[in-house]
Amino acid sequence: MMNSLRGNVLYGQSGGPTAVINASAFGLIQEALKHHDLIPEIYAMKYGIKGALNGDLICINDQDDADLVKLPSTPGAAFGSVRYKLKDFAVDDTDFCHLLAVLIQYNIRFFFLNGGNDSMDTCDKIDRYLKQKGYRCQVIGIPKTIDNDLPVTDHSPGYGSAAKYIANTMMEIVCDTISYPKSKVAIVEIMGRHTGWLTASSHIATHNGSGPDLIYLPEISFDFEQFLADVKRIYTEKNRCVIAVSEGVSDCEGHFLGLSSRARDDFGHAMLGGVAHTLADLVSAKLGYETRPMELGLVQRCASHLQSKVDLKEAMLVGKVALRRALAGDSGVMICIKREQNRPYKSSYFTHPFADIANGETKIPRTMINASGNGLNDSFLDYVLPLVQGEVKPKYKDGVVGFCHIK
Amino acid sequence: MMNSLRGNVLYGQSGGPTAVINASAFGLIQEALKHHDLIPEIYAMKYGIKGALNGDLICINDQDDADLVKLPSTPGAAFGSVRYKLKDFAVDDTDFCHLLAVLIQYNIRFFFLNGGNDSMDTCDKIDRYLKQKGYRCQVIGIPKTIDNDLPVTDHSPGYGSAAKYIANTMMEIVCDTISYPKSKVAIVEIMGRHTGWLTASSHIATHNGSGPDLIYLPEISFDFEQFLADVKRIYTEKNRCVIAVSEGVSDCEGHFLGLSSRARDDFGHAMLGGVAHTLADLVSAKLGYETRPMELGLVQRCASHLQSKVDLKEAMLVGKVALRRALAGDSGVMICIKREQNRPYKSSYFTHPFADIANGETKIPRTMINASGNGLNDSFLDYVLPLVQGEVKPKYKDGVVGFCHIK
Repeated sequence: MMNSLRGNVLYGQSGGPTAVINASAFGLIQEALKHHDLIPEIYAMKYGIKGALNGDLICINDQDDADLVKLPSTPGAAFGSVRYKLKDFAVDDTDFCHLLAVLIQYNIRFFFLNGGNDSMDTCDKIDRYLKQKGYRCQVIGIPKTIDNDLPVTDHSPGYGSAAKYIANTMMEIVCDTISYPKSKVAIVEIMGRHTGWLTASSHIATHNGSGPDLIYLPEISFDFEQFLADVKRIYTEKNRCVIAVSEGVSDCEGHFLGLSSRARDDFGHAMLGGVAHTLADLVSAKLGYETRPMELGLVQRCASHLQSKVDLKEAMLVGKVALRRALAGDSGVMICIKREQNRPYKSSYFTHPFADIANGETKIPRTMINASGNGLNDSFLDYVLPLVQGEVKPKYKDGVVGFCHIK
Repeated sequence: MMNSLRGNVLYGQSGGPTAVINASAFGLIQEALKHHDLIPEIYAMKYGIKGALNGDLICINDQDDADLVKLPSTPGAAFGSVRYKLKDFAVDDTDFCHLLAVLIQYNIRFFFLNGGNDSMDTCDKIDRYLKQKGYRCQVIGIPKTIDNDLPVTDHSPGYGSAAKYIANTMMEIVCDTISYPKSKVAIVEIMGRHTGWLTASSHIATHNGSGPDLIYLPEISFDFEQFLADVKRIYTEKNRCVIAVSEGVSDCEGHFLGLSSRARDDFGHAMLGGVAHTLADLVSAKLGYETRPMELGLVQRCASHLQSKVDLKEAMLVGKVALRRALAGDSGVMICIKREQNRPYKSSYFTHPFADIANGETKIPRTMINASGNGLNDSFLDYVLPLVQGEVKPKYKDGVVGFCHIK
């Protein structure tokens, strides 16, 4: 049922980038441009919610089409992002007052935030505040996270591409490592604070015959003795041992193995890092093997040169669907993905209220992890394989993927 | 002039892998298979020269064609590699006696080693030894190095793909880094002990509008004061600063900035690492900026998912040309690439004696580096751009690039 609301769009990006976050922006923009009668202007927040609070908006209608078409292959957050947590407006409504003034000034009636759990918390607060103030504005969340930890949705855009990058990179690291007669114990640290979805995706490489021998996830409490026994057994048997480990693995008391002294990020989360080095020191001290600790690093979340086609398509579609749902009168909800079937893979879209999503976190179910807790099983493969299918052929200029420069 | 030598081929891989070393193997094998009358059997050394010394050979004729065709997209050294330096045979000929016995046993008359400077030193010794012993065997070197430091040849197979990977990855890291309003000073450590060709390739990203602001190479003695002044100026001006630095940069006294305590590799080279962290600590202490040090890591040398088409083609051709030159009676030489023209890019192949190559090292000429010594200029772009052109579409299975398993 189409409501009669007419006004402008405000779209923002939040939290860490993914390889396809700008594809969601592109999907939303393309759809909004089709409804020029209802949406005269499309704005993007410069540096996420901070831009919305400061009235620092980018007018999409002023951008060159030749630039906008490059959005789907552009890494990073093309409009800028931020990690900024809104206070409870019952306690301090300063930010909310600023935001409302900007929404009124630009006649924003359709508000979108493209992010993860924290962003959905922001959306939830804004939606409730605007309703309380009687300002009509449809607030819709567009899912985005490499971590794949958003609840309710089957998976999140950004995960499939990160998983594809990690699977290929691990395959390459393993092929490289086993090139030598006496290979070092390679320990690869992969992103993921509380959930192991990213690290688990390295199992795709194992399934294809060249992946890690052992995979350690935050979902399974880390057992040092068992770890050393695993490494010794594999190394003795195969003369190699490649380990994938989540940055967020923790011991039986819940202490992070890789907790650094760098304290906390702007959302208040502990900053992790160094678990590969911690484990390398352990292997070296207790087993005497040579080790090669490494971190996959930033590129995991922004490898636009290796997007999953399925992920790219879904990222564009969640943007498109978000715009349509807003026009249809929805507010206070995030777009979720439903897996309809696996062979061939088909998905559909539905909406769900922010509150459940903001406060939830989906971990890898125990049923997808092997009995020993040091690897994945076929149930995980059934889940992940459809999401990494298909390759995208981005346009290159001078050997580099073409990306979009927002004015 | 075709000589009348008839016998078997022995091919080996040496040193660190590249994204296209197996393409050279493929080129050589394809060509050798065409000459079955002269070459009844094709062997590969298992784990490089060590396999040749131990008689541990892989028979290529026994491999499945379906596997062999995947060689060009296979990362790592598909037949195994090793870092092993042969002694001077005038002092100790033990290894050489073993090798000669294996060559006689398998009737090897065409001997190829695919590697860098150290491998050409090995080839040189073997060629001279065999000539002294009167054993007729054509010894040919096939160039391979991501470092691009081999003299005489215009460039080396492996460099173009590594450069393409680094350029794209740096573009992605920069897009990611500038996604935030207040970005950290990102310091990216790139491989390269004595030459900065790999680090320099990040300038392709800068040229395309999203690359490092500052590039530090081993060719230029590192000046700490100038570095801090550069970082401060850029950060003040742009509110960002992305730095690419070679692992092998050294100060005015020639001391490596990133010298680790891990001593030496099997060739006796100092093991480097940590220069990004050294510089990050410096920036943090002296300028008070937040930093993000990172290492590009292993994937630089094995990213088969992002090969340069030009590099892949040349890698196959050096293998093919090596076989032809051996059949034509050449020995004691490496195949070199001559750049015939840049627009459109054309190259040809010639041979050059090992001795000059084994003991030489090509650094980036000062004329390709900017006046301040903290970046590259258009002369470098003219050199590098042709080498990173074109994309390859490898076949994927379950989201992962198909690679070859040698039996």
